[in-house]
Amino acid sequence: MPRPSEFDLIRDYFTRGFPQADDVLLGIGDDCSLVNPPLDMELAQSIDTQVAGVHFPANAPAHLIAARALRCAVSDLAAIGAVPQGFHLALTLPESDPSFLAEFARGLRQTAHELEMPLLGGDTTRGSVLTVTVAVQGWLPQGLGLRRTGAVAGQDIWLSGKIGAAALILDEVLKTPDRDDAATAPYYHPQVHVSFGHVLLSLATSAIDISDGLLQDARHIARASGVNLEFDANAIPTSVPREHPQWTQCLTGGDDYQLLFTAPKDAEDRILACAQTINLDHCTRVGKVIAATESDSGNITVIANGTPLNFDREGYEHF
Amino acid sequence: MPRPSEFDLIRDYFTRGFPQADDVLLGIGDDCSLVNPPLDMELAQSIDTQVAGVHFPANAPAHLIAARALRCAVSDLAAIGAVPQGFHLALTLPESDPSFLAEFARGLRQTAHELEMPLLGGDTTRGSVLTVTVAVQGWLPQGLGLRRTGAVAGQDIWLSGKIGAAALILDEVLKTPDRDDAATAPYYHPQVHVSFGHVLLSLATSAIDISDGLLQDARHIARASGVNLEFDANAIPTSVPREHPQWTQCLTGGDDYQLLFTAPKDAEDRILACAQTINLDHCTRVGKVIAATESDSGNITVIANGTPLNFDREGYEHF
Repeated sequence: MPRPSEFDLIRDYFTRGFPQADDVLLGIGDDCSLVNPPLDMELAQSIDTQVAGVHFPANAPAHLIAARALRCAVSDLAAIGAVPQGFHLALTLPESDPSFLAEFARGLRQTAHELEMPLLGGDTTRGSVLTVTVAVQGWLPQGLGLRRTGAVAGQDIWLSGKIGAAALILDEVLKTPDRDDAATAPYYHPQVHVSFGHVLLSLATSAIDISDGLLQDARHIARASGVNLEFDANAIPTSVPREHPQWTQCLTGGDDYQLLFTAPKDAEDRILACAQTINLDHCTRVGKVIAATESDSGNITVIANGTPLNFDREGYEHF
Repeated sequence: MPRPSEFDLIRDYFTRGFPQADDVLLGIGDDCSLVNPPLDMELAQSIDTQVAGVHFPANAPAHLIAARALRCAVSDLAAIGAVPQGFHLALTLPESDPSFLAEFARGLRQTAHELEMPLLGGDTTRGSVLTVTVAVQGWLPQGLGLRRTGAVAGQDIWLSGKIGAAALILDEVLKTPDRDDAATAPYYHPQVHVSFGHVLLSLATSAIDISDGLLQDARHIARASGVNLEFDANAIPTSVPREHPQWTQCLTGGDDYQLLFTAPKDAEDRILACAQTINLDHCTRVGKVIAATESDSGNITVIANGTPLNFDREGYEHF
């Protein structure tokens, strides 16, 4: 029997069982996918690549690689407040291994259903290193997107959830990459705060998802907004307490995909009410936005009992 | 001096000098890009990956890798008849080599200007194999997209341009990958028939761009439309004549990105007039659509002087 062709592979694994949506006019199998945009909405898009041995263990199970890749990509939609619409997948793999593809597609299907996102199209290519690129998109009410540029001195800094769980479980994931339970969930199945991002549209002035570490990602908001950010070390909800030797890792480790955002002081009650409405475990005021001069903005300070802390590194370095 | 971070790289190379467009509300540098969809248009999208050593020579110059990657991706927009809007780039590379990135960005910028497509966003990642994924998108008048499913028995098969030039220059490209002239242009700078694809919206019944070989890609139309396709060997414009030993390669080699389409017989005059209007070098009737039974459709035949030809292979095999 001849080995399956690319087209057979795609047809078999990536066309069946994915979520459907009325706005998808044409899915996998033609030169392009076709989507019908809703009236008066902006198209929000992000593209995200994960490489075996760099962004996930090369020997991780296929279904968990898929789950993580999709969730990490969708987090960017949450961070700008968009409602997810669908995604395209570019998958590079060493050979057309049917069992790998079946498992990858299973994990992708399950996560796509959890996030209610149809797979619109894709490209499957051969290459010596397993590489997963996910292009996600969603819709955003005109002019309301949560950009990084909107933080204003005097506003509060807020954080969804706790940070650190993904970074602290990484060693265990590297040791036993097929462990798929509550402990490794923050790594393989990070929470994606799509609903919360959407309710923040009318409350927050800037937002980012924490993919590379709280301090490093906070700096993006600070730089883009031309402000400084000051965190209260004791206010930040972390997976281990302040005095734990791994506490620093919680602030500089990546992969949490919690939302960091800024908001005017008078939004506090509404933020907490919204967080409660959607059953968010934690939503915490963790610092304040500080005025900066043009030449000295973008600084991140973490204050513990009146003293600024020093950190050797701020987050994940890509190169 | 510290090595540049991912963020510095992106800012330096991928934010300046690219085409601008009024419908781009937010480009590179935030969690998502934001685009303003036009009224009453469908969003057409395709994603395309090229891996070093598989889809292009690993030692090809960076600017040519970029040019080819973007053009090959945009070809899918031409094949469905969409007007290009912009693209996202996911670039995986072994190290953050500033000279490589500068050259890659230069080639990408130039091609983006030629195609008038803004770079909307991207992701730069580290990985041992250079991998370029381009996600392209454009707009299409509602319901007019040139799908693969519309070919009907009795219609003509048409081909833009000549085929074979890219396949026949491949050996030379592999020998001297930095050769960038008229001979290697079909490989590195394939023509993308965006304008012609758009005028075909009201003329053609199905279309595909030839990326993997005429015969193999023709089969996609035949299968999707539930028909058979019969080509006239003597009618197909090829880079070498019928009696040349490499003639077969012209029909089975990929990388040409010419448009193969079907149209009703009475569209002939209008097709030729449109082709002339946009200065298309060739536009040729190359065969006819044949009725098929449900259980025996998807067949491709090439007839030479009344006799069907045999081919060992039909096109590029991805795995």
